Amino acid sequence: MSKKYVYLFSEGDASMRNILGGKGANLAEMTRMGFPVPQGFTVSTEACTKYYEDGQKISDEILEQIYAALAETEKIVGKKFGDLENPFLVSVRSGARASMPGMMDTILNLGLNDIAVQGLAKKTNNERFAYDSYRRFIQMFSDVVMELSKKRFEEIIDEMKEERGITFDTEFSTEDLKEMVEKFKAFYKSEKGEDFPQDPKVQMIESIKAVFRSWDNPRANVYRRMNDIPYSWGTAVNVQAMVFGNMGETSGTGVAFTRNPSTGEKKLYGEYLINAQGEDVVAGVRTPNPIAQLENDMPEVYKEFTEIATKLENHYRDMQDMEYTIEEGKLYMLQTRNGKRTAASAIKIAVDLVNEGMLTKEEAILKVEPKQLDSLLHPTFVQDELKKADVFVKGLAASPGAACGKVYFTAEDCVEAVQRGEKVVLVRLETSPEDIEGMDAAEGILTSRGGMTSHAAVVARGMGTCCVAGCGDVKVDYDNSCFYVNDTKVSEGDYISLDGSTGNVYLGQIPTEEAKLAGDFETFMGWADEIRTLKVYTNADTPRDAKHAVEFGAQGIGLCRTEHMFFAEDRIAAIREMIVSKTVEQRKAALDKLLPMQRGDFEELYRVMGDRPVTVRLLDPPLHEFVPHTDEEIKDLAKEMGLEFADLKATVEGLKEFNPMLGHRGCRLAVTYPEIAEMQARAIMEAAVACNKDGLNVVPEIMIPLVGEVKELKYVKSFVVETAKKVLEENNMDFDFEVGTMIEVPRAALTAGEIAKEAEFFSFGTNDLTQMTFGFSRDDAGAFLNDYYEKKIFESDPFAKLDQIGVGKLVRMAAEAGREARPEIKLGICGEHGGDPSTIDFCHRVGLNYVSCSPFRVPIARLAAAHAAVNNK
Amino acid sequence: MSKKYVYLFSEGDASMRNILGGKGANLAEMTRMGFPVPQGFTVSTEACTKYYEDGQKISDEILEQIYAALAETEKIVGKKFGDLENPFLVSVRSGARASMPGMMDTILNLGLNDIAVQGLAKKTNNERFAYDSYRRFIQMFSDVVMELSKKRFEEIIDEMKEERGITFDTEFSTEDLKEMVEKFKAFYKSEKGEDFPQDPKVQMIESIKAVFRSWDNPRANVYRRMNDIPYSWGTAVNVQAMVFGNMGETSGTGVAFTRNPSTGEKKLYGEYLINAQGEDVVAGVRTPNPIAQLENDMPEVYKEFTEIATKLENHYRDMQDMEYTIEEGKLYMLQTRNGKRTAASAIKIAVDLVNEGMLTKEEAILKVEPKQLDSLLHPTFVQDELKKADVFVKGLAASPGAACGKVYFTAEDCVEAVQRGEKVVLVRLETSPEDIEGMDAAEGILTSRGGMTSHAAVVARGMGTCCVAGCGDVKVDYDNSCFYVNDTKVSEGDYISLDGSTGNVYLGQIPTEEAKLAGDFETFMGWADEIRTLKVYTNADTPRDAKHAVEFGAQGIGLCRTEHMFFAEDRIAAIREMIVSKTVEQRKAALDKLLPMQRGDFEELYRVMGDRPVTVRLLDPPLHEFVPHTDEEIKDLAKEMGLEFADLKATVEGLKEFNPMLGHRGCRLAVTYPEIAEMQARAIMEAAVACNKDGLNVVPEIMIPLVGEVKELKYVKSFVVETAKKVLEENNMDFDFEVGTMIEVPRAALTAGEIAKEAEFFSFGTNDLTQMTFGFSRDDAGAFLNDYYEKKIFESDPFAKLDQIGVGKLVRMAAEAGREARPEIKLGICGEHGGDPSTIDFCHRVGLNYVSCSPFRVPIARLAAAHAAVNNK
Repeated sequence: MSKKYVYLFSEGDASMRNILGGKGANLAEMTRMGFPVPQGFTVSTEACTKYYEDGQKISDEILEQIYAALAETEKIVGKKFGDLENPFLVSVRSGARASMPGMMDTILNLGLNDIAVQGLAKKTNNERFAYDSYRRFIQMFSDVVMELSKKRFEEIIDEMKEERGITFDTEFSTEDLKEMVEKFKAFYKSEKGEDFPQDPKVQMIESIKAVFRSWDNPRANVYRRMNDIPYSWGTAVNVQAMVFGNMGETSGTGVAFTRNPSTGEKKLYGEYLINAQGEDVVAGVRTPNPIAQLENDMPEVYKEFTEIATKLENHYRDMQDMEYTIEEGKLYMLQTRNGKRTAASAIKIAVDLVNEGMLTKEEAILKVEPKQLDSLLHPTFVQDELKKADVFVKGLAASPGAACGKVYFTAEDCVEAVQRGEKVVLVRLETSPEDIEGMDAAEGILTSRGGMTSHAAVVARGMGTCCVAGCGDVKVDYDNSCFYVNDTKVSEGDYISLDGSTGNVYLGQIPTEEAKLAGDFETFMGWADEIRTLKVYTNADTPRDAKHAVEFGAQGIGLCRTEHMFFAEDRIAAIREMIVSKTVEQRKAALDKLLPMQRGDFEELYRVMGDRPVTVRLLDPPLHEFVPHTDEEIKDLAKEMGLEFADLKATVEGLKEFNPMLGHRGCRLAVTYPEIAEMQARAIMEAAVACNKDGLNVVPEIMIPLVGEVKELKYVKSFVVETAKKVLEENNMDFDFEVGTMIEVPRAALTAGEIAKEAEFFSFGTNDLTQMTFGFSRDDAGAFLNDYYEKKIFESDPFAKLDQIGVGKLVRMAAEAGREARPEIKLGICGEHGGDPSTIDFCHRVGLNYVSCSPFRVPIARLAAAHAAVNNK
Repeated sequence: MSKKYVYLFSEGDASMRNILGGKGANLAEMTRMGFPVPQGFTVSTEACTKYYEDGQKISDEILEQIYAALAETEKIVGKKFGDLENPFLVSVRSGARASMPGMMDTILNLGLNDIAVQGLAKKTNNERFAYDSYRRFIQMFSDVVMELSKKRFEEIIDEMKEERGITFDTEFSTEDLKEMVEKFKAFYKSEKGEDFPQDPKVQMIESIKAVFRSWDNPRANVYRRMNDIPYSWGTAVNVQAMVFGNMGETSGTGVAFTRNPSTGEKKLYGEYLINAQGEDVVAGVRTPNPIAQLENDMPEVYKEFTEIATKLENHYRDMQDMEYTIEEGKLYMLQTRNGKRTAASAIKIAVDLVNEGMLTKEEAILKVEPKQLDSLLHPTFVQDELKKADVFVKGLAASPGAACGKVYFTAEDCVEAVQRGEKVVLVRLETSPEDIEGMDAAEGILTSRGGMTSHAAVVARGMGTCCVAGCGDVKVDYDNSCFYVNDTKVSEGDYISLDGSTGNVYLGQIPTEEAKLAGDFETFMGWADEIRTLKVYTNADTPRDAKHAVEFGAQGIGLCRTEHMFFAEDRIAAIREMIVSKTVEQRKAALDKLLPMQRGDFEELYRVMGDRPVTVRLLDPPLHEFVPHTDEEIKDLAKEMGLEFADLKATVEGLKEFNPMLGHRGCRLAVTYPEIAEMQARAIMEAAVACNKDGLNVVPEIMIPLVGEVKELKYVKSFVVETAKKVLEENNMDFDFEVGTMIEVPRAALTAGEIAKEAEFFSFGTNDLTQMTFGFSRDDAGAFLNDYYEKKIFESDPFAKLDQIGVGKLVRMAAEAGREARPEIKLGICGEHGGDPSTIDFCHRVGLNYVSCSPFRVPIARLAAAHAAVNNK
């Protein structure tokens, strides 16, 4: 028996979504439920996969099955392809497992040829309609299937209008349309070197191939990458008998939702057009009526439709989005699917469905995509205004939200402009820690370099500020305070608008609306919290970030990056003094100045977090990040610090590294300069002492970064613990503290069993782990990652979505070895991946205790963790 | 029962080397064999380990065992510590498992105090001798054990000489020496605040502790790192009854070898002094006699000694290095051990021992350390001249050999000077590919930056040129054509001498001698080849390198780095033209120019290698390595290429990377620019076609570098294979070719099972794999690796000796997964580690098929592979 690749609608059901695609499976299910569905068949997703495996060919085996299904369908509907009396016409539509705009448009009226058009004329008693359909079919088929340019068809139409002195298509006579068909066919022949295919079977097979091809077009590839849809799924093709909504006043067509997709209100919502085909609704030439009107126009049909709609919603236990056509008073269901909805309505519908007893809480939380919550937490553009705007240039959607403001190119200018009351967008080649204040002041940030985990992206997400990063087409000219995109110049003070959720950049102002949390948000998130087993922590460096995160439901701080505290103006001087120190004594003197500041930082953080755990990471970045690099700046600093220029310059030069990512940083700094880690350990402990004296119960967690060898950890830990104990003694107090490590170097993951003997917790730093496991840096990968997507080597950005195969293998090995060596070890993830739903699912499966992400991703992570709990039951 | 930490000589044997150390085990063995050994006991290496575990304390348990062993020994020798009549005196010596200079000096005459000195005087009937011994003991004990400065003791002696108007120590009278003892004791008390210890047990315990401490002194640590001796081994301490060679004309002391350690000649070789202690031999005040003289002086003793020597050599089945003392006509053996020897003599001895039937070939090859062969393959300094020279500055021993020449600072200057007939040493901050010709012309290379796998080191080893790298104390001043070490200036044209085997740099000229292969070399290496199972390939980029390697016994080329061919003057222009191309067509045009050059390179290589396999790696380095970086150079190049400066500058800027090691390189270049890989594949195949037409049987192996994901390999392989097949078709030929990959990215190792489905061979690129697994780059690690050695986090340079725990785990995983997926897969290593004996042992154990190393390391690798085969039987 050969494998089955083609299914009649009557042979499938909703459970066969993977094979039949969403549309095909639902058409089969509606058929099974006895609803009026124009019959047809589905060519399976497996046929698509085989098409590509066979070198973009449909095998004979599959062709045979298609022809057999066609014959069967012709029998069911009682029509025949190319028939002079009763021609069989079909639509051909793509239908993947997940809904996928970006793929092929629908082909309607397939089957029309010089003979069938006459049959259609007779059958509909409308010759003009038949020829209009025929010329439209030729246009559509030539464009979509045969990839002929649309332009020449438009030109032919325009020439004929001019000859006849008419303005609208509707003014063409039947004879005009016949002439147009001939002209179209002639053009087709001149271009393709052969006649327009008259054999409906050829039309059909070519269309099926076109659907398969469209699975691999650039739009579809981009959409898949953005939505985590694997290339390997393939698409199915649905071949379905045509019904006509344009056969007079008792015909019509429309779309409807069982609930309002914007608000979630439980009321049939939709629109329809009398005497029209689906195309007309989309074209927007005529204004459709609200569906309520149908009750007046055709009460019987309306009643039947509402009954079907209710049954479908109850059957699928979710809000349905349906397409239907009425042919001469008879209702046909063309499609049903779970309706897309806004985040606010998604939450309301989910809560309502639970209250109506239709769903359990577990099922309900799955009805909201975690990423959807973004729009509830960040400003968005006013949708109607957005529709009017053209995309100016596109970058990476680095931090969600919408922003509109005047362009400035330096952090200082941004801060000053905001003080003048302006709204600003900071535009930079890339940002650096010195830009923090400007980034904080700005509505949005645009950079021309850097990826999803670049400084700009990471900091912006932490702040909840909109950011479009790595926008390579933006050529920044700092000298003239402007930037160019191709030949368009944008100067300081000009308005631009950024959409950090899509990466789109617009010229001029697009109004934004503030985020608003829907009423059911708390209820819904409460369920998510009940269901999930993974804890959700946050990456926060400042009390403000921490406060945000707690409001969003963070249960602790998984990563506090102490170096982010070092860039403030009053501290950078002390840091630099420490860096240029020539002796341990000088260095200690400089560190003594930093101690009270760090202690203050941590104390504030602890007080915001209450008794929630706070994990503080010791100094991580290479020291050259803290010193200036141009001669001018070095001169200034030398003067300020009372040093010789040459001396300071030599120090700065000495800190330069070939590969800073692989340089003197992380715990390597603590190995060379134990006094730095000692100062930080002291600050962490003294802050806890102060809080605990006030009755708090802080258990500080000290995290040692970039460990690759257990002896490294052991060494640094030894004086961290010694310092901590000294602080407790000095204060005559005794409370717990923990020392753990990041697992972010492959060797740490490989030797995690040994490392766990010294570490009370592991925090997977998947940013660095990804860089080192793949061997490319996030800052440099931008130069080639696009080639990797285009050539399908990568389907998603490994810095945004954890690579579960390679990097994940290390995480899994380390988690297992760590738990074996120390069963009570606490395991978490604090890379940027910690806020990504698919990664969270992975973390759940690997058995981590928590994920830690930027504050604005906390709700997403809470929901994603709940999804993971349900999906992996 | 408590653990045994202390062993009488009569309780041990040679097999207990790990516990007793080499010296202790051999003393026990000689005791067991009935040879005359002054008795004593050994405090075990385990006691040393426990000493450190207990926080540098000797536990009571061990103390008790020491005292018990002491009492037992006193009984055996019939003397007592501190006795007025017959005082027991001992020597205390360190003795680790491996011979370790750098540790504590010997303490002689321990046990002397104010009473015992009188006993000694009586016993020896020589009061002057007794007090001279006492004052020497005080000096030695104060210096070595109590760490008092030697200087004051010397001053006291000088002052006393001045007072007395004498010149030599020997002129002091007994009364002078008594006075000196008092002065020494007074100084001791003033410094230490307590009397010089009169209790011999205290002297002994303090000395034992000093030996334990010396295990951890900087010299010992450096020596261990250089010789791969683990810190965890610890040292034993030998306490042995003193015998006196200075008791008159029937006493004496000496050292001897059973064979000549320089030539290997089978003849007792050594020297002795009548009426002397070991000290005197070392001090060099008196010239010792050749051992043959002993036959005349004391024929009985000589006979006994030669018999013992022969028995020892037969027993240990190796050339012995012995120390002995004759006390009043009675011979005492103080030590025996396998003698150190030059490489040439090591080979001769090994071959002779086989011929004499004493050793099997397997045993014989173990008698030569692979690294020793270096000195047979490279020039060395004339040893007598070297002894006179002072080390000027020290760097990394990056490429072995000795060199002497005039200093020049640019490659061009070197080339010109050589053309004038000068011998030159190239001195650079670091070298880059543009320096190749200068490096080639130079006798030696000195760099101030970069580690063991820096460009300078790798290229120099490939060329067999002496190189000292990473010599941080050398401050190069290019502008003034000189360099400084502290305040010493060395100018262009000044002579320096480099020792690439030690990293030492000398001012001025030290004559060198050419390498010469000993007569038995071929025989010996032939045995190694018979025994080993690992194949030995070479890393060679030029026909010259390949020729060298074949002469040294390479069985193929494991790595040909095609980019090294690109830097020659006639090619760099075409490369640059390719890089600045804006379209695929331009790029192809530039590549077309390179094609014949590359084809020619490969053809030459194939012809040198005959039918031996040749693995060619596709272009690996980032493109910015091929373009100039200063504005001036860019201007020149722009002019040369007819480009706008701004345009070229923008291209160069665009190629810059934050972390070039983690950037756009390796197969990522081929993904972006398939045409480059196509050109190379074509060149590789066309060269093979030309050779195979001439009757050779070349099977080209095309290696795709830096793969991290199987789809990446699949993609690049697809057009490499397509191109190769096209070339075969065009030439109407059909022969095999293979496509494989480097495993050098951790993710490749983690997903090796998948990758093996597409790769016919794996070559482990352990340089990059080490960098990425540890997360530090070889160029930047220099800044902190010394701290890692000092703090005992690392014991060896992971770029020189493979980290078998972490990186090795990846290699092992990948080898296993690769073989599972493709049982016939060919596995090799081509990193710098491929020439390191301990790594080669690992490769053998993991079951690789070959190691590939630079040409001058091939003999070392052959021998190391044989060692691995024997040691892992």
